[in-house]
Amino acid sequence: MSTTQISGVTVATQANVYFDGKCVSHSLTLADGTKKSVGVILPATLTFNTGAPEIMECVAGGCEYLLSGASEWVKSGPGDTFKVPGNSSFQIRVAESYHYICHFG
Amino acid sequence: MSTTQISGVTVATQANVYFDGKCVSHSLTLADGTKKSVGVILPATLTFNTGAPEIMECVAGGCEYLLSGASEWVKSGPGDTFKVPGNSSFQIRVAESYHYICHFG
Repeated sequence: MSTTQISGVTVATQANVYFDGKCVSHSLTLADGTKKSVGVILPATLTFNTGAPEIMECVAGGCEYLLSGASEWVKSGPGDTFKVPGNSSFQIRVAESYHYICHFG
Repeated sequence: MSTTQISGVTVATQANVYFDGKCVSHSLTLADGTKKSVGVILPATLTFNTGAPEIMECVAGGCEYLLSGASEWVKSGPGDTFKVPGNSSFQIRVAESYHYICHFG
């Protein structure tokens, strides 16, 4: 079961555009100050670097990801999550689209 | 002065992806039930059809737009808005990026 909506948030109106638009997200702040983002990755293979640790939650579509130091690509679909350590990186490959929530910290 | 954030909203986590990702938005519902969306258009010339009337508010970047039946393209930058009638259409051309809030109704 994936998370279809998030309530009680403040949304930054300006999008975050990465990799020439292959990844587009909007930043959210919850009432308790927690930061998240909602975004989509379009067909591409991309490498992301993390500052804070992240939990990536798939809400629609899907991807395969490869964590730094790992040797196997793992599939992630609606309702699945994966954790990325802080100050690390991961590769992601998307065939159609990957809609996600990024939970920080 | 453009609108940098919108508070007290419910955000749909799955993005709306149009024109192969040249336009990506997330749908918002305000506490009073009002629907809006926040999105970005990347470099392209696109034609959008409206159902409900829309007010497009630029929050960053810029565009030129041509309303149905109009003969002149008009520039729109941060803080600018333009109205589109219901059951109509408009063309938009974006050189870099156009970040917007779409107000419905």
